[in-house]
Amino acid sequence: MSRTISDKMANLKPSAVREILKVTSDPSFIAFAAGNPSAETFDVTALKKLCDSTLDAAALQYGVTEGYPPLREMLAKRYGTKYGLFNAEADDVIVTAGGQQVINLVAQSLLNEGDAVICENPSFVGALNTFRAYNAKLVGVHMDGEGMLIDRLEAALKAEPRAKLIYTIPTFQNPGGTTMPVERRKQMLELAKKYDVMILEDSPYFELSFGEAAPPAIKSLDTDGYVIFAGSFSKIVSPGIRVGFSVAPKWISSKMTVAKQNQDVHTNGVFQRVIYKWLRDFNVDAHIAKCAGLYKKKSGLMLKMMDELFDKRVTYTRPAGGLFLWCDLPEGYNGSELAKAMTEKKVAIVPGTAFDVNEDVNNRGFRLNYSVPSEKQIETGITILADGIRAYLTK
Amino acid sequence: MSRTISDKMANLKPSAVREILKVTSDPSFIAFAAGNPSAETFDVTALKKLCDSTLDAAALQYGVTEGYPPLREMLAKRYGTKYGLFNAEADDVIVTAGGQQVINLVAQSLLNEGDAVICENPSFVGALNTFRAYNAKLVGVHMDGEGMLIDRLEAALKAEPRAKLIYTIPTFQNPGGTTMPVERRKQMLELAKKYDVMILEDSPYFELSFGEAAPPAIKSLDTDGYVIFAGSFSKIVSPGIRVGFSVAPKWISSKMTVAKQNQDVHTNGVFQRVIYKWLRDFNVDAHIAKCAGLYKKKSGLMLKMMDELFDKRVTYTRPAGGLFLWCDLPEGYNGSELAKAMTEKKVAIVPGTAFDVNEDVNNRGFRLNYSVPSEKQIETGITILADGIRAYLTK
Repeated sequence: MSRTISDKMANLKPSAVREILKVTSDPSFIAFAAGNPSAETFDVTALKKLCDSTLDAAALQYGVTEGYPPLREMLAKRYGTKYGLFNAEADDVIVTAGGQQVINLVAQSLLNEGDAVICENPSFVGALNTFRAYNAKLVGVHMDGEGMLIDRLEAALKAEPRAKLIYTIPTFQNPGGTTMPVERRKQMLELAKKYDVMILEDSPYFELSFGEAAPPAIKSLDTDGYVIFAGSFSKIVSPGIRVGFSVAPKWISSKMTVAKQNQDVHTNGVFQRVIYKWLRDFNVDAHIAKCAGLYKKKSGLMLKMMDELFDKRVTYTRPAGGLFLWCDLPEGYNGSELAKAMTEKKVAIVPGTAFDVNEDVNNRGFRLNYSVPSEKQIETGITILADGIRAYLTK
Repeated sequence: MSRTISDKMANLKPSAVREILKVTSDPSFIAFAAGNPSAETFDVTALKKLCDSTLDAAALQYGVTEGYPPLREMLAKRYGTKYGLFNAEADDVIVTAGGQQVINLVAQSLLNEGDAVICENPSFVGALNTFRAYNAKLVGVHMDGEGMLIDRLEAALKAEPRAKLIYTIPTFQNPGGTTMPVERRKQMLELAKKYDVMILEDSPYFELSFGEAAPPAIKSLDTDGYVIFAGSFSKIVSPGIRVGFSVAPKWISSKMTVAKQNQDVHTNGVFQRVIYKWLRDFNVDAHIAKCAGLYKKKSGLMLKMMDELFDKRVTYTRPAGGLFLWCDLPEGYNGSELAKAMTEKKVAIVPGTAFDVNEDVNNRGFRLNYSVPSEKQIETGITILADGIRAYLTK
């Protein structure tokens, strides 16, 4: 009887997206289901050189949990001073194993069982599963093309006396592809203050803008310590190296450090130094602009094909950056049925239910990724998908 | 009011050892307090070459949570077949961010608040803090020179209806330096079965034997799925790269995978491949023998100095492998007072209380590390320490 899974984990399922990817990793599939950056954006030659010049005894030894000090300084400088995103000091920064770990450290440091986390619906499944693993109550707030609806957010905050955290991906949202304008960011921050609730601003995509720079981070508007910022190098350098960072008020940052000590002691020492030197020695902004340019081109092609071929009853977002766009089928249809039908045609899409706060509802949406498929695959895949949608809608 | 730390984390302190290391990282200190392997054991040249040959687009992309498949195969082969340590299949293996992450994944997957974890007292503080963070009740079992006393273990199991896990470091224990003989391992396993409790066998040091191979892993004696094994490359390759592994029954391994997905998605892809090629292409056993030889020499020197210079009322273990030995002051004295006095003499030791299940007791022990200091530092440092002990005992 005592050889049993803990209550918190007993009902938790693996990420539906990662399970779909196992089925569709067959290279004959056209992959619109991934969350990966394009391998074209990996600068293998530069990273090899950086590894070679940084790998030494210090990089191989245990390091401090908070991260390699020069990298923390560099992150504070780049994301704090240079871009004016927030008034970060090196002391506020923790170097993490990707943005995912920030979510986990925040959840562990803040949430008691039964506390409510208010988030966009749909949202990033890796975050939702993390909150579920701490037995938090997930409260989804409906979005329009500009993110969370503020009146609905306030209604949720009013209705939930145990609201502890607002989780948001304000810029180029996953899975929605939407971006919250600065006015709405200010309103969200005001509500956080009014209801005394923290905000976790998850922003792995914000540097990948297709046009003007993204609106200022919510963290940059925060003068009273209500915002924790999660950043990542997964989409601008490489996800395989698992390097991200948090910027958080000290009272929570110090507990996140203790939680990280328990999770992995510290982030890989060689790649903390690689990222440090990459930020120090390379034209990082030019590299990021190149990545964004590639995704702009691919998303443009995908949208052009969709405009031409999709049934007009299907609606979709037009992202200004990032990796994803979101489609809604007409009322009465559901994304899971379509995704299943498309699997037979070897086109992989993720049904909306995978991102839904309520995993059991019929969600009429689905997510498309344009960073991974080639232009040729986008052309072929969207043609097959458009045919599949037409067939499904006439059933 | 809602901007507060979660109950579980509110009272958790950072690792006392890591806090001591911050104070004593001043290079003028003689460091007997560390838990680090010697930098002499890092093969920088080989690791640079391996990085250069493995860093490619696949290594930089997202990978599966369980780990790089060829590495899982290789680990099952080396630790399963070749050494006969356990009947591991690749499916039973998860590649983790060091051995520390195994402890965390097991705790998250198994423990409900209030469940009891029975462990050696003293024990590894990184494990104790992890169990504390899940609000487990820690029950320490007294050790002799051969590990946990089996009658005391059974008494603890009888007294704790909510006992869920036995946590043990059976080989070259941290901090004790003791090794559990095979008979006692069998008895522990029998008790786990009798009381239906899982065992977490944490074994980061077992390959670093000074003489004959260590006794068989408890996992190798386990035919009924009662043991989870935690392994690590921190002490035989490098701790900075954060690579370890678990071998666990499938019902728990599958939940640990979900927990890992939430923590860091997967372990650094480049260094998973580096370890794979290191195991495949290098004379790994010769390298490990070299590391063990170095530590044998250093521990021999330390013990020789202690035998000559220490007050005879101080007792200590004589480790057959690993990185640490443990000293006990006479009754009525305590390790914290000695450690404080030694800080003024610039010799860093860790007081036993840092490893005690009950952090508030006066513990008369202290831990010495011999892997980090040079032979010269061992000679000087033990001389200063012996003088310090004499002064303290005559107070």
